[in-house]
Amino acid sequence: MKFARFTANGETYTGVLTDGVIREIQGDMFSEWEYTGKIFSKHEVKFLAPLEPNQIIGIGANYVSKKEELPALLPEIPVFFFKPTSSVIGPEEEIIIPNGIDQVKFESELAVVIGKEAKHVPESDVLDYVFGYTVGNDVTAPQFFHQDGHWTLGKAFDTFTPLGPVIETELDPFKVNVKARLNGVEKQNSPTELMIIPICKMISYLTNMMTLKPGDVILTGSPVGAEFVKAGDMIECEIEEIGTLRNTFAAAKECAKIR
Amino acid sequence: MKFARFTANGETYTGVLTDGVIREIQGDMFSEWEYTGKIFSKHEVKFLAPLEPNQIIGIGANYVSKKEELPALLPEIPVFFFKPTSSVIGPEEEIIIPNGIDQVKFESELAVVIGKEAKHVPESDVLDYVFGYTVGNDVTAPQFFHQDGHWTLGKAFDTFTPLGPVIETELDPFKVNVKARLNGVEKQNSPTELMIIPICKMISYLTNMMTLKPGDVILTGSPVGAEFVKAGDMIECEIEEIGTLRNTFAAAKECAKIR
Repeated sequence: MKFARFTANGETYTGVLTDGVIREIQGDMFSEWEYTGKIFSKHEVKFLAPLEPNQIIGIGANYVSKKEELPALLPEIPVFFFKPTSSVIGPEEEIIIPNGIDQVKFESELAVVIGKEAKHVPESDVLDYVFGYTVGNDVTAPQFFHQDGHWTLGKAFDTFTPLGPVIETELDPFKVNVKARLNGVEKQNSPTELMIIPICKMISYLTNMMTLKPGDVILTGSPVGAEFVKAGDMIECEIEEIGTLRNTFAAAKECAKIR
Repeated sequence: MKFARFTANGETYTGVLTDGVIREIQGDMFSEWEYTGKIFSKHEVKFLAPLEPNQIIGIGANYVSKKEELPALLPEIPVFFFKPTSSVIGPEEEIIIPNGIDQVKFESELAVVIGKEAKHVPESDVLDYVFGYTVGNDVTAPQFFHQDGHWTLGKAFDTFTPLGPVIETELDPFKVNVKARLNGVEKQNSPTELMIIPICKMISYLTNMMTLKPGDVILTGSPVGAEFVKAGDMIECEIEEIGTLRNTFAAAKECAKIR
């Protein structure tokens, strides 16, 4: 089932997308909801990020380029970071490159949407707590990584977390490829089995520290191939079974200067 | 004005504390609210964290021990980090030391509560966007700092962000001392003028990157003197003009083991 948020005629809706038709729902996507009877063609709506995340957690450097490179021993402490919810945008929105920043890169990722409160969840049960999956672009300005290793600021700028186009609830996350095309040219294309810390281990680990909540989004890392971009570039992050998340990079207007 | 959240007779309320009496309010603390007419004695209620934060942003290593040590040049990129909202607890709740963690420390801090959406705010206007101030304890387990410098996990555990007891809206943040007493013995006591990056500069800097929202909490750093603790220790974080945030450390129950 594909859940979408969208606007039509100036109103915001949530709905389920089937064969090009979106049927509006009301209620809580994560628990109880029902169809309202209202139906839209996907061509008459503007897709938004498919949820307003409660929190966004990313994992760093989580892909190898081929299976033989997968390490025998997993890192004891993975690199996790938070991204602010204020950085979220939807498909087709502009990713703004702030003034004074030369290097911004895209990172196409499988984004896991948590559906149930999760604490101390063993690996074998993790998928019971997952509501679905969307595509994320973990846009990053390494220039704002702190020299002592803190990534927070470099990933926190407004518009730096495109999500969408839909949340697919029926995906097999172990059988998909995470792709990115920059101006139509393929730059990333890796199966999720090239993740160093696999999804269930990653989420189980997190739940042993903190309580995950419905609406938390876990960005599961980006395949080899991310590149720097410039204003005007178009980036398409894609997982075929979910859809294509397309955004264009734009330079900040003058007033948006970093002092 | 002192805003509080509290429970009484199994219900949760928000109210304004004056002279030991709390008058319940309804509406949005940050915009429109009114008194309901319901009144409680502060002795008959249990204080909660005074808000459910939208997001929590901390700054690292932000105090010197005396004025002469303040650097002439501020760091170009300060150390910022996010803490998950799931880590928030209120006064008198237990801070749980997870199994397998030997070193946990308290960090008493002035916590700024943002009241209005803030983007590209000059230093001179920052206080217009501040709703008020509370006391925060940025509990930290450095053992879970990543060797490459990422602090996220070491600060993210459930119960690691006590906040309270109230939000004081009339504080002069430049004229207060941030204190901590461990089992009754003073360990931290510094005026906020010993901050390396002062409050207005810090928040202006953040708003040049990301949009701050009502309910965002900025932990402004901890004075010199934080120490490691053990189960059974009582920590009181205090800013006299706001109140005392008291919590006791406890060991995790067996089921809470980190794998």
